[in-house]
Amino acid sequence: MPRPLILVSNDDGITSKGILTLINVMKELGDVLVVAPDSPQSGMGHAITVGESLRLEENLVFKGVKAYQCSGTPADCVKMARHFVLKGQRQPDVVVSGINHGSNTSISVLYSGTMSAAIEGAIEGTPAIGFSLCDYSHDADFSHTEEYIKKITKQVLDKGLPKGVALNVNFPPKQSQPLKGVRICRQANAKWVEEFDQRFDPNGRRYFWMAGSFVNFDKGEDNDEWAIANNYVSVVPCQFDLTAHQAISILNEEWEILDRSEQTEVSEYRIPGAEDGLKIQ
Amino acid sequence: MPRPLILVSNDDGITSKGILTLINVMKELGDVLVVAPDSPQSGMGHAITVGESLRLEENLVFKGVKAYQCSGTPADCVKMARHFVLKGQRQPDVVVSGINHGSNTSISVLYSGTMSAAIEGAIEGTPAIGFSLCDYSHDADFSHTEEYIKKITKQVLDKGLPKGVALNVNFPPKQSQPLKGVRICRQANAKWVEEFDQRFDPNGRRYFWMAGSFVNFDKGEDNDEWAIANNYVSVVPCQFDLTAHQAISILNEEWEILDRSEQTEVSEYRIPGAEDGLKIQ
Repeated sequence: MPRPLILVSNDDGITSKGILTLINVMKELGDVLVVAPDSPQSGMGHAITVGESLRLEENLVFKGVKAYQCSGTPADCVKMARHFVLKGQRQPDVVVSGINHGSNTSISVLYSGTMSAAIEGAIEGTPAIGFSLCDYSHDADFSHTEEYIKKITKQVLDKGLPKGVALNVNFPPKQSQPLKGVRICRQANAKWVEEFDQRFDPNGRRYFWMAGSFVNFDKGEDNDEWAIANNYVSVVPCQFDLTAHQAISILNEEWEILDRSEQTEVSEYRIPGAEDGLKIQ
Repeated sequence: MPRPLILVSNDDGITSKGILTLINVMKELGDVLVVAPDSPQSGMGHAITVGESLRLEENLVFKGVKAYQCSGTPADCVKMARHFVLKGQRQPDVVVSGINHGSNTSISVLYSGTMSAAIEGAIEGTPAIGFSLCDYSHDADFSHTEEYIKKITKQVLDKGLPKGVALNVNFPPKQSQPLKGVRICRQANAKWVEEFDQRFDPNGRRYFWMAGSFVNFDKGEDNDEWAIANNYVSVVPCQFDLTAHQAISILNEEWEILDRSEQTEVSEYRIPGAEDGLKIQ
C-alpha cells in the first residue's frame, strides 16, 4: 500500500509557524504536497478569486516536500492543487489546513480561510481537516498539538469521513496542564459584536478599524467553546449543505404565495452525495 | 405602526443595476438604508476585513434614500450598518442583498458575497434574504423579478423567519414565458470543476485565470437547480450552523481516540438560539 498523499494548505500564508508545524507532523504520515497562500489570508471565509488572475510559484524552503505558493485564497489553493498541480495524477488522500494562529470555534468557522480550504477538500470528495490553535500570537507554542494532530489525521486516513463532511479541530492554548482529550462537538451558539474604531488619516479623511468582542450565548457542554474552555481538543464535523432543512416545512405551511397544487415533497435531511453510500475514503 | 426599516446591500457594488432595482422595489415597502461595497466583491464568500482598515463614505446618487459605500466586503457592510451607522438606533426589520448579477444556487452559496450579507443579517437575529438572477450580464433584465421580490419580502416582514435562517432566492433569466411560481427548495448537490488557463505576462512570468464548468449531480426535483431549470423562483432557507449533526454519532462510535468515560451526549439538531423560541420578527 503506498504512503498516503497529503495536501497541506492554510490561511496564514506559507511562511507561518503553524503550517511548518503541520508539514512536519504530516511528513511522518505520508507524502506531502503543500499549496498555500503567498501572504496572510485571515478572515477570507470561502472567498475565491474570480475577477483577477492568479500566480503560482514553486517554494523551495521545505526540505523533502514539494511546495507551491499561490497569490489566491485558501480555497483557490486547494482548487489549484487538484486541478492544476495534480491534474491527471493521483489525488490527495486527505486535505489538512492550518495550523491556524487563532481560534476558529463557533461562528468563526464562517469567516475562516483555514476551514474554507478543508471544506473545499470535502466538496471534492476528499476527507479534510482544518486545525486551529486558540492563540493568535505569531510565535505561538504548537508543541501540545502535534500528538493529537497525528492521531486525528490517522483516524481520518484509517476510517474516512462521512460524505460531505470536513472536521473543524481547535486546540486550547498551551497550558501548564496537559490537554484532557478529544471531544466531538457541535458549533457553539456565539457571535462577534463589532465596534468600529474611527480615525482620521493625515489628509483628514475618516477611516475605521473593525474590532469586536466575542459573546457566547451557549450554556451547553456539547459545543466547541465549552471544550476549549475546559482544555479539550474540540472536533466539529462541518458540512457545506447550508440548507436549513427544518425550515422548509415551516415555509411550505406558512407562506401564502406558493402554488400548492404543484408542490413537490422536499426530501428529508441528507448529506450531499450520500445516496452513493455514506462513506468516502 | 412605523414603516419597516430595510437594510440593502450586495456584492456587485453600489453602482450595479441589480442593487438599483432592489432599492426601487424596497422603497415601496419601507424606509431604506443602503450600505454596499464601493467596488465589485463577487466571489468573496463570507470574507471580512481583519488586517486592513475600512472606508465608509456617504453616497448621494439615490433619491430619497440614505446610502453609504464601504471599501470592505458584503459582510463588513452589514456589520458597519448595524454597529456604526445605526449604532444606538432602531435596527433593520429585514436585510436584503442583491440583486446579484449571476446565479447563487447550489454550492455557489458558499462563494457568494450576496448571501454572506444575508447570513450576516441572520447572525444578528434579523430576517434576511439574498436575491440573485441567473444572468451574469452587466445590463441583465431584472423586470420579471420585481413582483416576486416584493411578495417574498412582504411574506418575510409579515411572518418572520425561523431563527438563524436566511433565504437564498434565485431567479431564472428573463424568458418569453412568465415565471411559473415560487418553490421552497434544498441546496442542490452540484459543484464546479475548475480549469486553470495558463498565460505568460510580457516578462515571461506565468499566471492563471480560473475558469470552470458547473456539474450537477442532483437528480431530485426538490432542489434549487431543478427549480431554476424549470422556470420557478427557488427559495432555499440557509443556516450558519455548519455542524453536520448526523456525523457526530458516527465519529463518537467509530473513533478510537476518545475517552468514553467522560463523553457527553451531544444534543440533537437545533437551530442556534432556537431555545428562545423558534421565530424572530
